[in-house]
Amino acid sequence: MPNSFGKIFSISTWGESHGPSVGVVIDGCPPGLPLTLAEIQADLDRRRPGQSDITTPRKEADQVEFLSGLHEGRTTGQPLAMLVRSTDARPGAYDEMKEKFRPSHADFTYQTKYGHRDHRGGGRSSARETIGRVAAGAVAKKILSLAGAAQHGAPLEIRAFVSGIHRLRAKLSEHFPTLAEVEATPVRCPDPQAAAAMIEAIKQARSEGDSVGGIIQCRARGVPPGLGEPVFDRLEADLAKAMLSLPATKGFEIGSGFLGTTLKGSQHNDAFVAQGGRVRTATNNSGGVQGGISNGEEIVFNVAFKPTATILQPQKTVDIHGAETELQARGRHDPCVVPRAVVIVEAMTALVLVDHWMRHAAQNQTFRF
Amino acid sequence: MPNSFGKIFSISTWGESHGPSVGVVIDGCPPGLPLTLAEIQADLDRRRPGQSDITTPRKEADQVEFLSGLHEGRTTGQPLAMLVRSTDARPGAYDEMKEKFRPSHADFTYQTKYGHRDHRGGGRSSARETIGRVAAGAVAKKILSLAGAAQHGAPLEIRAFVSGIHRLRAKLSEHFPTLAEVEATPVRCPDPQAAAAMIEAIKQARSEGDSVGGIIQCRARGVPPGLGEPVFDRLEADLAKAMLSLPATKGFEIGSGFLGTTLKGSQHNDAFVAQGGRVRTATNNSGGVQGGISNGEEIVFNVAFKPTATILQPQKTVDIHGAETELQARGRHDPCVVPRAVVIVEAMTALVLVDHWMRHAAQNQTFRF
Amino acid sequence: MPNSFGKIFSISTWGESHGPSVGVVIDGCPPGLPLTLAEIQADLDRRRPGQSDITTPRKEADQVEFLSGLHEGRTTGQPLAMLVRSTDARPGAYDEMKEKFRPSHADFTYQTKYGHRDHRGGGRSSARETIGRVAAGAVAKKILSLAGAAQHGAPLEIRAFVSGIHRLRAKLSEHFPTLAEVEATPVRCPDPQAAAAMIEAIKQARSEGDSVGGIIQCRARGVPPGLGEPVFDRLEADLAKAMLSLPATKGFEIGSGFLGTTLKGSQHNDAFVAQGGRVRTATNNSGGVQGGISNGEEIVFNVAFKPTATILQPQKTVDIHGAETELQARGRHDPCVVPRAVVIVEAMTALVLVDHWMRHAAQNQTFRF
Amino acid sequence: MPNSFGKIFSISTWGESHGPSVGVVIDGCPPGLPLTLAEIQADLDRRRPGQSDITTPRKEADQVEFLSGLHEGRTTGQPLAMLVRSTDARPGAYDEMKEKFRPSHADFTYQTKYGHRDHRGGGRSSARETIGRVAAGAVAKKILSLAGAAQHGAPLEIRAFVSGIHRLRAKLSEHFPTLAEVEATPVRCPDPQAAAAMIEAIKQARSEGDSVGGIIQCRARGVPPGLGEPVFDRLEADLAKAMLSLPATKGFEIGSGFLGTTLKGSQHNDAFVAQGGRVRTATNNSGGVQGGISNGEEIVFNVAFKPTATILQPQKTVDIHGAETELQARGRHDPCVVPRAVVIVEAMTALVLVDHWMRHAAQNQTFRF
Repeated sequence: MPNSFGKIFSISTWGESHGPSVGVVIDGCPPGLPLTLAEIQADLDRRRPGQSDITTPRKEADQVEFLSGLHEGRTTGQPLAMLVRSTDARPGAYDEMKEKFRPSHADFTYQTKYGHRDHRGGGRSSARETIGRVAAGAVAKKILSLAGAAQHGAPLEIRAFVSGIHRLRAKLSEHFPTLAEVEATPVRCPDPQAAAAMIEAIKQARSEGDSVGGIIQCRARGVPPGLGEPVFDRLEADLAKAMLSLPATKGFEIGSGFLGTTLKGSQHNDAFVAQGGRVRTATNNSGGVQGGISNGEEIVFNVAFKPTATILQPQKTVDIHGAETELQARGRHDPCVVPRAVVIVEAMTALVLVDHWMRHAAQNQTFRF
Repeated sequence: MPNSFGKIFSISTWGESHGPSVGVVIDGCPPGLPLTLAEIQADLDRRRPGQSDITTPRKEADQVEFLSGLHEGRTTGQPLAMLVRSTDARPGAYDEMKEKFRPSHADFTYQTKYGHRDHRGGGRSSARETIGRVAAGAVAKKILSLAGAAQHGAPLEIRAFVSGIHRLRAKLSEHFPTLAEVEATPVRCPDPQAAAAMIEAIKQARSEGDSVGGIIQCRARGVPPGLGEPVFDRLEADLAKAMLSLPATKGFEIGSGFLGTTLKGSQHNDAFVAQGGRVRTATNNSGGVQGGISNGEEIVFNVAFKPTATILQPQKTVDIHGAETELQARGRHDPCVVPRAVVIVEAMTALVLVDHWMRHAAQNQTFRF
Repeated sequence: MPNSFGKIFSISTWGESHGPSVGVVIDGCPPGLPLTLAEIQADLDRRRPGQSDITTPRKEADQVEFLSGLHEGRTTGQPLAMLVRSTDARPGAYDEMKEKFRPSHADFTYQTKYGHRDHRGGGRSSARETIGRVAAGAVAKKILSLAGAAQHGAPLEIRAFVSGIHRLRAKLSEHFPTLAEVEATPVRCPDPQAAAAMIEAIKQARSEGDSVGGIIQCRARGVPPGLGEPVFDRLEADLAKAMLSLPATKGFEIGSGFLGTTLKGSQHNDAFVAQGGRVRTATNNSGGVQGGISNGEEIVFNVAFKPTATILQPQKTVDIHGAETELQARGRHDPCVVPRAVVIVEAMTALVLVDHWMRHAAQNQTFRF
Repeated sequence: MPNSFGKIFSISTWGESHGPSVGVVIDGCPPGLPLTLAEIQADLDRRRPGQSDITTPRKEADQVEFLSGLHEGRTTGQPLAMLVRSTDARPGAYDEMKEKFRPSHADFTYQTKYGHRDHRGGGRSSARETIGRVAAGAVAKKILSLAGAAQHGAPLEIRAFVSGIHRLRAKLSEHFPTLAEVEATPVRCPDPQAAAAMIEAIKQARSEGDSVGGIIQCRARGVPPGLGEPVFDRLEADLAKAMLSLPATKGFEIGSGFLGTTLKGSQHNDAFVAQGGRVRTATNNSGGVQGGISNGEEIVFNVAFKPTATILQPQKTVDIHGAETELQARGRHDPCVVPRAVVIVEAMTALVLVDHWMRHAAQNQTFRF
């Protein structure tokens, strides 16, 4: 089931970019969770195009609708399905893509694999597919917030933000950014100086008909120790899979990441300390995960996004008959998807954490000997 | 099933570092594959400790044995189980670890999660667990080699090698390294100059009772286009998960990876060209994968390994009663696990590719309309 | 994922009886399959209430809508989602059920398990949930029909029919009933004499405010040998699971079934014979499956349905506060669901066969040695 | 993974009848469970051949060995692997089966499906494969016994027994048979009069070189309400799958089963009553399951076993070249496998219940709102 994610709290998404709808069904949602459309819509609004002058002008209201699984404002434990109708389909706008493979898009691979594809707007490989993930992620985030508060005294919080655009890098600190700090600018970088420069870089790319990529950092605090299932379903393995399953991602690193390869063990090891009756680590090169299991420290990871493949410049390519040709994209164009991906990274992180929390409880808390 | 990996060609591993055995069962192996113990053993010998003077002196023959699934030298399509007995258990050597959590090991998280653990040598979190993966990977590599040759005229080849140790980086080129070039030095880096320096760095770390990490690059050629299952089981997502499921890994990047975030779309896009009747790309920033599906180009990715957590220096830690204490590891010590991990990276890559090949065929080649 | 079925060709259903909608998403559908709404609707019309004077008068048009996965009349290989909106919700009709557990319904168990439930019309335990199964089954049946014709010279046909109602049993023969013969009467029993008596029995039960159950026999011909995955996913095991996952089913038997326990091996064994270049069996006590794998003979099995739990007679029960009380159902009432379940049995059978065909091909036809 | 069963508490078995070994690995076993080899061996001894004069004289000690997952006598939560070596392989005894398909065995279907098979003793389709299931079932039964006692005041007990052999049927009553009553005779039927007649019938069949089948009834008491996951993973659906995955089974029915189809709703419905502060049912036609979820009453189901396919009489068949021929089995022969299957039915039931208990807890007890 390649369009499903998660083992106990699992989601299945459907929908092509320009098909009738995109949607998601959550299977395994705990019963009794209070939930409103507004909570889902708030996250969808952070994802949708047309939010600001640095994203695509494609206008989609992305109004979400519940299809099942709620009764009197609470989840029933049955499948929770949600739908967003497409409204901005522009027939004809993609006619050229029917014949010509757009470079670094999925046109060629989908054509080769399936033989028959919806060429409009990337079909299923479009970022529009992530709407279902974000809707489900909003549910997962609410569960984590309530559960963390109930079981561990503080809500489990997930905060993703843009830490790099093109060659610009934000100044990072120990401070866990607030949502307001992230949302303060359309680029969603909590370092105001870097944010201003990033916005300029994105506008510059747009004016050139070009695009830029960047890096999202995601942090989660209040994660209870014990989440993660060795050996293949290590927490970082499932996070890596979740992130690399997003369109345009090229890399994932947790804790010290690639830079950690340049340290010695004596520098890299996180000494344990006793703090307030808990076992803590003095440093966090582990990124909150040891042996594939959360250790109670902050989970910290980075995700690399390549520059958007759609650019408004002529490009060499090949058509579906195998002949070399040139492609000139026209019209709407998103010079940088990274700011809109922040809420998607949060969503996938939340989905991984809820699923692992339930898996952990199943094996370790159902029975006691 | 956290100890299983793969959906159609799937493996399940068992065994703790100092338990009676480690092993693996492959479910879904195609029938009729000719297979010998020697083929499995060859890869296990590349993984086992004590191969050279830059690895741990722990001596394990790691002799593999078939438990089921073969008949007259060929696979039957039934579960193929393989076992390696432990021989070098040293009772008592790990007594201190029973009480004290080793920094950046899994002692604390296993204790917290499961309550009861085999503390000897890391139990299930030990790299010894990967023996089963390597044995299964040898089977997968053979399938890919034969299948590539039969279906596409050239064997599908996977080549992993060390591209970085500590601060040293190998010079990379277009040349696809031969197995001989990789195995020429115990550090398994095909750049001889870099290899020499890396060996020195590892010896230096050992002499200091310290450790170093590094980077493994893995390349696969002859991969047919079409492998990978959007949206969650994208090929790069499953590769990322496979790599982050390995002990000591902290990062994964494919194609342009993290560096790709510094390029513009016009620089990063891989133009399509017609070549020998095939659609190819002029560059390979995509790393052989577009939209989650292989495009027939070389698959190229990097994996970051942190420095080994075990060092022969005194470290601050906490014991299982919550009291701060100091730990002084003694005895055998592997200053760098990266060279031994090369065959493990190959194995996981092969497992992902075989599984995805079978999944692709199931959906796209069972029926024709 | 308890609301998903199938490993490669898999479906996920959602929706409560009186919620906004019921629906299904198929993941793993082969690409290129021509498909129309009318083909889906035809099967839904066989399932929906209000078809004849022996079923519930509840009137639902059950109009199906495609949500994704089709492009220019063919499947894309992406998730194929379908939706049916609810139209006949009658708020208030189920108020009594909110407080009182209906005997032999799922009210008590859902309340106990989930704490919070949609009590209207049985919520998720309602037969209305099977709409998604029937819609997906129509797709599966079309695949089997085309694939059988293309690969084996004859379409794979599945025919279910009512073979028993209450104490009445149809006369069974070797003849594979035509669809017209099954649909000739509203009771869907191809033995006209038995059908007439069954209709009378159902009307009699209705006039008493009572209900009756029955038996559905299902046969499939043109099934290629080789389908079924030992040891746990034997074809009959997955068929049994599929059937016992239907509301109101209490039993499953294949081939000789329970009666076969009264035979001796010498009577029961199916002798092999050579016929037209194929290996056939002289008898079919095996029911088309040996060792969990189809042998090319007709697959024949029976499914037992209990009498409908809803009756229009006063019944003793307990309310949600634990107090004994009496329940008197009113209004619409389906005295026998068995005829409407015929198309559901066909659907589940088709889903099992398509999934197993794809799994078989994945393991045994992807690679050749 | 066709050789795996269960989603959270899951087992994977391996091994052919005459291969080097059979075994099982349990993934997801709760940590901390005290366990001894003797507990496993006790159940294996009930399954193994050569126990009495009404089973096959094949002598196998079936000594089980732990391969992993135990530390200091308790489970670690890691994979628990167990192995039984083959000792009684008789090379040559099966030479005839290499060429001739045994009627109603899996020879033909395995040959057709896999092309290459271990023909000796049925290979993977042999009842010897169930050794792994019985070993894992012993673990599951222990968990249920302890958990029931701890959480509900009484151990969850599973009791299977022979209720029919050939045309003989035991007298059934409300009394929950004790293990001693079941084990009192080699036929494992707790009705002494029926048992005596059954033994005679089996001996008679053997003297004729023939075989007989029968029925096993299985009951489970102390099952908490709430187990079972609608809609596809209903408790009875997973029990049905578990039973039909056993060699030689042809049918499954729960509660009123096939006989229930002859009742009216007013007779069949189980009225709810308040009893000792609990909601109970006055009758148990539901067999302990409503809407796919356990209701706290006894779970009661029947499993039909066909007569053993191996008989010592000449039979018509076809050889692997497609020519008609005759087969005359010789040597050891088990005239009735049903008594030895009792412990296998118990094992599969226990596996289903533990897995569902953990799944139930995961969704409904991890979080509370």
